[in-house]
Amino acid sequence: MNHALFKKHHKTLTSAVKAIRGRAYWSAYPEIPSGKIYGQSAKDDGLAAFKAHLNQTFSLDQPGTEGTVGDEVSPYGLSLGIVYPKANLDILLPAAQAAISSWRDAGIEARCGICLEILDRLNRRSFEMANAVMHTTGQGFMMAFQAGGPHAQDRALEAIAYAYEEMTRTPAEVTWQKQVGKDQFITLRKAFRIVPRGVAVVIGCSTFPTWNTYPGLFASLVTGNAVVVKPHHGAILPLALTVQVAREVLTEQKLDPNLVTLVANSADSHVTKDLLGRPEVKIVDYTGSSAFGRWIEQNATGAQVFTEKAGVNSVILDSATDLTPVAANLAFTLSLYSGQMCTTPQNVFIPKDGITAGGERLSFDEVARQIVESVDRLLGDPARAAEILGCIQNEGVLKRIEEAASAGGAVLRKSEPVAHPNFPEARVRSPLLLQASADQRELYTHEMFGPISYLVATENTAQSIELAAQIASEQGAITCSVYSTDPAVLQAAEEAAARSGAALSCNLTGQIFVNQSTAFSDFHVSGANPAGNATLCDGAFVANRFRIVQTRVPVASEASATA
Amino acid sequence: MNHALFKKHHKTLTSAVKAIRGRAYWSAYPEIPSGKIYGQSAKDDGLAAFKAHLNQTFSLDQPGTEGTVGDEVSPYGLSLGIVYPKANLDILLPAAQAAISSWRDAGIEARCGICLEILDRLNRRSFEMANAVMHTTGQGFMMAFQAGGPHAQDRALEAIAYAYEEMTRTPAEVTWQKQVGKDQFITLRKAFRIVPRGVAVVIGCSTFPTWNTYPGLFASLVTGNAVVVKPHHGAILPLALTVQVAREVLTEQKLDPNLVTLVANSADSHVTKDLLGRPEVKIVDYTGSSAFGRWIEQNATGAQVFTEKAGVNSVILDSATDLTPVAANLAFTLSLYSGQMCTTPQNVFIPKDGITAGGERLSFDEVARQIVESVDRLLGDPARAAEILGCIQNEGVLKRIEEAASAGGAVLRKSEPVAHPNFPEARVRSPLLLQASADQRELYTHEMFGPISYLVATENTAQSIELAAQIASEQGAITCSVYSTDPAVLQAAEEAAARSGAALSCNLTGQIFVNQSTAFSDFHVSGANPAGNATLCDGAFVANRFRIVQTRVPVASEASATA
Repeated sequence: MNHALFKKHHKTLTSAVKAIRGRAYWSAYPEIPSGKIYGQSAKDDGLAAFKAHLNQTFSLDQPGTEGTVGDEVSPYGLSLGIVYPKANLDILLPAAQAAISSWRDAGIEARCGICLEILDRLNRRSFEMANAVMHTTGQGFMMAFQAGGPHAQDRALEAIAYAYEEMTRTPAEVTWQKQVGKDQFITLRKAFRIVPRGVAVVIGCSTFPTWNTYPGLFASLVTGNAVVVKPHHGAILPLALTVQVAREVLTEQKLDPNLVTLVANSADSHVTKDLLGRPEVKIVDYTGSSAFGRWIEQNATGAQVFTEKAGVNSVILDSATDLTPVAANLAFTLSLYSGQMCTTPQNVFIPKDGITAGGERLSFDEVARQIVESVDRLLGDPARAAEILGCIQNEGVLKRIEEAASAGGAVLRKSEPVAHPNFPEARVRSPLLLQASADQRELYTHEMFGPISYLVATENTAQSIELAAQIASEQGAITCSVYSTDPAVLQAAEEAAARSGAALSCNLTGQIFVNQSTAFSDFHVSGANPAGNATLCDGAFVANRFRIVQTRVPVASEASATA
Repeated sequence: MNHALFKKHHKTLTSAVKAIRGRAYWSAYPEIPSGKIYGQSAKDDGLAAFKAHLNQTFSLDQPGTEGTVGDEVSPYGLSLGIVYPKANLDILLPAAQAAISSWRDAGIEARCGICLEILDRLNRRSFEMANAVMHTTGQGFMMAFQAGGPHAQDRALEAIAYAYEEMTRTPAEVTWQKQVGKDQFITLRKAFRIVPRGVAVVIGCSTFPTWNTYPGLFASLVTGNAVVVKPHHGAILPLALTVQVAREVLTEQKLDPNLVTLVANSADSHVTKDLLGRPEVKIVDYTGSSAFGRWIEQNATGAQVFTEKAGVNSVILDSATDLTPVAANLAFTLSLYSGQMCTTPQNVFIPKDGITAGGERLSFDEVARQIVESVDRLLGDPARAAEILGCIQNEGVLKRIEEAASAGGAVLRKSEPVAHPNFPEARVRSPLLLQASADQRELYTHEMFGPISYLVATENTAQSIELAAQIASEQGAITCSVYSTDPAVLQAAEEAAARSGAALSCNLTGQIFVNQSTAFSDFHVSGANPAGNATLCDGAFVANRFRIVQTRVPVASEASATA
């Protein structure tokens, strides 16, 4: 432990390593936006810091800056008016590449210490980040604080812990001795050196700009690569702040800040394909649409590619001891951030003859009615509704809601604007619930991103399970939720989920939801269906971001004789 | 430890896991072809077993067999006359796919136990395998025994050990408990299930059919996938034997033998692209030419692809305490299996003004003369020469030797036929040594597979290092060897090797050679230059061959309250 920052954060790293080995509950960064934890003025300071960015040029002293880009508009209504450096890739990429060798030679502990210091500083700026995430993604404040701040930081730490384990599992040096005769030995000193792949590009999405980006960013950085961060044009600020903090820490540590750079773009200009075409790029982390994710998987063949695309998640409703808590849980799940989480279910499969709940037989219509009423009840208070729903991130989703409402399925619950108590122009909509029959596949088997869900009437639970698995295998799925009092149904669902690569949650009620994925315990995205090829986080997420290059030197024979 | 075969081989696995953590010397399978170890009749029995295959239809009871293929001819002169099942992929691939779920559900210990049993049986058939490898690859008997038998088995075990570590690092189950209020907890039981990717294809090469194939084969198999083995048409028998043993053990264990199948072809028919185009194929391991390897990397985008392609390896000769042992070491290195190892150096970079050795100044010509003389001395006895050189695996190499001799570089040592004492028709050739100047790049910067080496006169050692690194970065390289008494030169070479991804050996003399790569210690291929994208073996080689799919179930609240 020769590096001061490694010493400073060693306990955090050790605890994180323990956590990934056990995958039980653990968290490093407090998720409660409390003044007692973050400082009494933290909330006001964070808001003020966010406001100070508005209508300014965001300062990042990057090489190859030629003009500015950026036209983010908050889903809450205000135009952010922030512009960011426009990057000339012919200058920026070589600068990133040039930064790598000293970072590689700094060694594992220095890199870990520095990455943990970056996280620590990001944590202290969680309120500022919360506002930045809220006003780019449209999330409610609480979610923006948690998912944008501490939960994203936890996911980053998880990736660092896996990378640390992977880099240190091979000794740096070893003496290799082979007996080749009665008293004869061949003795070699071998050194195993961790070398990075090159420049890593991390492509962010508009809904979870930090949570989905940090694992790739920190996994690539801590393993010695330079990282170019490419935010979604609608959610630049959270990642610009991140890049700024990283560059600050690197500069303080007398390292080249170009190890972390930003390549932003405006809505009408594209830069990702140019970026991925650069020969320096050896790693790509992507979160976003399935179509572009597939393009990257098929075309960025010179790079290690990690994707999280989209999917169609299912709920299988078979039976319950009591439908009320089930409906309440589903109502929250379907409402939270207006279905703009990649983990939100789209389809709720219910047998057309209904289900048994609490010993009673409930018809399909009765089940549907209870779910609709639960949503109505949950969203009855506009202020609470606005906080749960957040805003619709982009206009495209509004259009999709409209189209879905008239595409064929019976409307069980209309999507309607909800007045936000603080932001009159906020793009808030309540969930659209539609009814479909199992054979109306054209309605529900493709992804309908946003607050659009189908209650699908199936022949029976066996068909529900089969449909959920089939859609997961073909379209991808991240989560699957099943409600049943029958162990055989739960087992069949587990088997189907394992076969189709969806993470299964059984009989969730109360304050735990299928949408939630917790760092250090839940594996987010299985990588076993088209929803993505990687997981946050496992060994495979980090192991191929660096390579080992070895050196062998013979050891003088006297040493071998006495060894 | 519920599985009998896991218990039986547990000690071997435990030792292998310890070995990969330490990367010091260890081996599970004895490399000495001794009757004391393998049984007094083992040598004769192995030869007899090999001979019994000749001019027969190789028996593999695979579905979708339609006719036969195969036209192997031993580089030692005899036509093997063996034919193998010709596979109808439309039947074979679905059968392989169908075998997966019960193999997945058998669990980690059963899969490990069974794979280790397969290895154990292969080990007992090492003499038979030695003959099969010798008469397909053209290796001398000793190399065929070691590289084709125990060394390949060690590499397989290494892959199994990494896979076992990776599969067991995540607990199968955990109780996750989060405090959400003073006395309130959310408690979930989480199960993490290892699921395979699908069908894995392993593509073998003609020179090391088992050594290069076993790691991918066993890494994919032990992680739950079905494996289709596609041997090179010139070296089918060693892999057909392997598939036969695997199917035998699987059948005994009441598992579907179609988990391991063979897809062979004759010289004039191709099957690999058809195979890789199948939707079932999710993993590809490839050893072979750079051109086809690149094609696979760019086109098999729906699969995890692990490649070992070719490269241009270098020796950097700067200085020595004594040139004699250096020249002797180089002579063996350049002669062993006629340069048909992917680790054999092609270029020996020597300053045009010569080197210092033992306090004396030796001119370039004097250094070249000593190397040539060492080769001549080593190969002076025809019987020993034939054993060291082995045979030229295919006619194409003969043609390349001829063309290289007249392509421009001065011939320092002619390649000549060597009479084999036992096989009069054996295709044995001594090494061709050519001289080139550094600026004759068109001669030496591309791969010249076979016993063709260039002594390249450079401006100085700095240029030698730069050329070695540049060629490694551009063409790929697996090894680099440096001789110097100057620590600064060794350090510069280490830096260049780390930058260009070649494994460096320093000042090797005596009975250790740059060509050799030892399981459990040496990382074979760095994956950090175009010679390949993977290593035998590290975490990255196994981690992405399976995925984890999780299940979460709430635990009743009384349990949480007392936890």
